[in-house]
Amino acid sequence: MRKLYHWPLDPASRLVRLVLAEKQLEFELVVSPPWKPVDEVTRLYSNPVGPILVDQGKHGRIVANHTHAIIEFLEETYPDVRVLPALAGDRAEARRLWRWVENRFESEINGSILAERIAQAVQRASAPDSALLRRGAHALRGVLTYLNALCEEHSYLTGRVLSVADLAAAANLSALDYFGDVPWDNVPDLREWYSRVKSRPCFRGLLKDRLSGAKPASHYDDLDF
Amino acid sequence: MRKLYHWPLDPASRLVRLVLAEKQLEFELVVSPPWKPVDEVTRLYSNPVGPILVDQGKHGRIVANHTHAIIEFLEETYPDVRVLPALAGDRAEARRLWRWVENRFESEINGSILAERIAQAVQRASAPDSALLRRGAHALRGVLTYLNALCEEHSYLTGRVLSVADLAAAANLSALDYFGDVPWDNVPDLREWYSRVKSRPCFRGLLKDRLSGAKPASHYDDLDF
Repeated sequence: MRKLYHWPLDPASRLVRLVLAEKQLEFELVVSPPWKPVDEVTRLYSNPVGPILVDQGKHGRIVANHTHAIIEFLEETYPDVRVLPALAGDRAEARRLWRWVENRFESEINGSILAERIAQAVQRASAPDSALLRRGAHALRGVLTYLNALCEEHSYLTGRVLSVADLAAAANLSALDYFGDVPWDNVPDLREWYSRVKSRPCFRGLLKDRLSGAKPASHYDDLDF
Repeated sequence: MRKLYHWPLDPASRLVRLVLAEKQLEFELVVSPPWKPVDEVTRLYSNPVGPILVDQGKHGRIVANHTHAIIEFLEETYPDVRVLPALAGDRAEARRLWRWVENRFESEINGSILAERIAQAVQRASAPDSALLRRGAHALRGVLTYLNALCEEHSYLTGRVLSVADLAAAANLSALDYFGDVPWDNVPDLREWYSRVKSRPCFRGLLKDRLSGAKPASHYDDLDF
């Protein structure tokens, strides 16, 4: 059996769900909120951050934490469907962009926009910190512009084939898109790319997520948004 | 030929140098300051961050940026000396800790302590921001305590064998240690671990680094500090 301890709107958890689904690996989802992890999680790590995979497979019981460790493990262990390109140079570029996307969202965007929206929805915080939202929105525009430029050149971010870099960007954008916080109109090529990625079977689980306390934006699960 | 564009006191550059040296791969170092990258670097990436490896090897010319992309490429391509353990579960743990170390130092420590010291030494900034230094020192103590606990159990951070997690921690600590900013007295097991890692041949290059404008702390290149 394979278990993923996750939180539905955590972008890192979403990325791992996309990779597992893309690889057509079955898994059980166990919700573990970052602010109140379930007991199994605190028994595994003293200070858990992000998704944790427990894989009972051909290597025995493997416990992995962090997208880097989890996805490289899945890629090594279940190579039938790959999320990293075959050629060394393309692999390096996919990994660079994967890391770039996660770092930018984590350090400049998720802590402001996403955290504020979640505080509102889940913790019933009072009005969001508008200065923080503005800073996040500014950083997001920079990231979107860069990603849009990549989509002007190719169907996917690192070339003609989908890679983990696309899934990382889509996972992060999908969490913001739940709250209607992605200004798609300014980035038409990226919008088309997102519609393409979102239409893949691996995305179905994410589009069904619902936070009690906050309905998603009306286009959230619309494939032709 | 293999070229690494780096900056001597950048922890991510130091980590890649350690991995290359541990694997006994020859490389030419080209200094490219983060605040004024050399032309070759800006031709490769529009907004370069951290070390860039250009490897002319058995796969042709490979360009890789970010420790994740560079080191996974080196591990796949030059497996004679490995920096990731052989077993899947140990690999997952080494990668988790590698990412944990880099994330903690990057987000909480390097931007405060290291950036302030470098601003003083290189850019001749006036007095350091003492509140920032205090915040960084507080975060550093937390990280040191966790790493010290790991060293109480094993010779290396993830077990009995050196891995990329040790090299990542040592690379980050070595940059702070240049300025005498690591309170070693409080973490005796980690101190012993560092003395062991620092004595490896792969460390020699780092211990010879000298910033014009700032001499290293007296124990910086002392193996029995």
